[in-house]
Amino acid sequence: MRLGVTIIGSGRVAGSLCEAISGSSYELREVCARNEARGRALADAFGCGYCADPAYAADADIYIISVKDDAIGEVASRLKPPKGAIVVHTAGSVAMSALPGSFCRGVFYPLQSFPEGRKINFREVPLFLEADTPEVMARLKAFASELSYSVAEAGSEERARLHLAAVFASNFTNHMYAIGEEILRESGIDPKVLGPLIMETAAKAAAAPAARIVQTGPAVRGDAKTMEAQRRRLSSRPELLSLYEIISKEIWETSKKI
Amino acid sequence: MRLGVTIIGSGRVAGSLCEAISGSSYELREVCARNEARGRALADAFGCGYCADPAYAADADIYIISVKDDAIGEVASRLKPPKGAIVVHTAGSVAMSALPGSFCRGVFYPLQSFPEGRKINFREVPLFLEADTPEVMARLKAFASELSYSVAEAGSEERARLHLAAVFASNFTNHMYAIGEEILRESGIDPKVLGPLIMETAAKAAAAPAARIVQTGPAVRGDAKTMEAQRRRLSSRPELLSLYEIISKEIWETSKKI
Repeated sequence: MRLGVTIIGSGRVAGSLCEAISGSSYELREVCARNEARGRALADAFGCGYCADPAYAADADIYIISVKDDAIGEVASRLKPPKGAIVVHTAGSVAMSALPGSFCRGVFYPLQSFPEGRKINFREVPLFLEADTPEVMARLKAFASELSYSVAEAGSEERARLHLAAVFASNFTNHMYAIGEEILRESGIDPKVLGPLIMETAAKAAAAPAARIVQTGPAVRGDAKTMEAQRRRLSSRPELLSLYEIISKEIWETSKKI
Repeated sequence: MRLGVTIIGSGRVAGSLCEAISGSSYELREVCARNEARGRALADAFGCGYCADPAYAADADIYIISVKDDAIGEVASRLKPPKGAIVVHTAGSVAMSALPGSFCRGVFYPLQSFPEGRKINFREVPLFLEADTPEVMARLKAFASELSYSVAEAGSEERARLHLAAVFASNFTNHMYAIGEEILRESGIDPKVLGPLIMETAAKAAAAPAARIVQTGPAVRGDAKTMEAQRRRLSSRPELLSLYEIISKEIWETSKKI
């Protein structure tokens, strides 16, 4: 008999998980979500049941709680999993102990950003697992390995570091893109022209992450003339200017340490 | 008869140009570079002549000066192009007027980073052209269009903006990657796990640059609890902490403006 997995939540991570599970040997048993429209839409899309309240969730072998960080504890407290069922959450910055100690509990953290309207290849999403006991870890690993090529263990401390690293490598990077695009838009240049540069910079970092990333540009060259001109250009935007100063200084100092 | 192009310089942009020209209907006539080892290596690789001094460069139809910003003026002053030949430089932050007014002059700015050891598909590199006269612009465009799908005009002001946008979208982004990797390396986690997240974040920005980029993460959610924990984690690194504060604040404030 196939093992059943219930997803609690109807956000973008929940949706991605439903899709990944549908392509595995596990059965997507139920989507449980307070937001009925979104929950039913997911359940219909993947041909499984729907329920609104975790207190009435159907029996399953694995429950994945993928809701807002603050709601994890409350959702878990309503859940009545059958004996031996595993309950995990998917949050980077929430400890496993947010789940009741009476559960076979764990964490199932996907290191990826799941923005609206983007199709994610779940097979390539690194999954970081934590579990209460070696037995639960073994079962979680077997499950995770069907969804992704990249599965590893990570305790709460490591997971917090992964989440912080992701904030720099994704959220903050995204903000740098947004600033670059804004600078172009102000003068009527289509920001699309940054695409190849953005992709090349990312591909370079993804291809050789172990090596110190080779930095280019005026800051690492110590090109005072260009930097002075760029500062002048940002002079009407104090917040961008201070970012420019701090990051340029950091790039210069990092390069001296190599 | 094929039109001849001479490359002055032996750096990474020069090397990429040699390769792109070799695949075009233009003839790569000569590589001219003070660094003899690198210059000869390029000339041999692409089967053209070599000279050390621009004063003795063979006649060509187009000269592309791809040397350090500070050296452009001096290199150009030694050059004796035949009448009607075009002379351009490739620098983002140098005015066209760095070249002698007696030349048919222009700028040929590739908006891409050319790091050591990475293979660039020149066809996808956006090229921004400036020229003294419409006639020179037409000839430059005909040439550039053989090398890249993306060719546009840009005056010195627009080019400076492009260069500044590239600093944020590439150099500063690169620094964010480096910080993320460092955070992982400190705790023995292979930074390679950030690869899929980095690629997805870039692909999203490159795919929909015109739209306001959809930000994710604790800063845009106003997730005070996670942010407080992340601040504590950075408390021993004041420079990273101040970056964290400034960028998070910016992300939050930008999201309010949408």
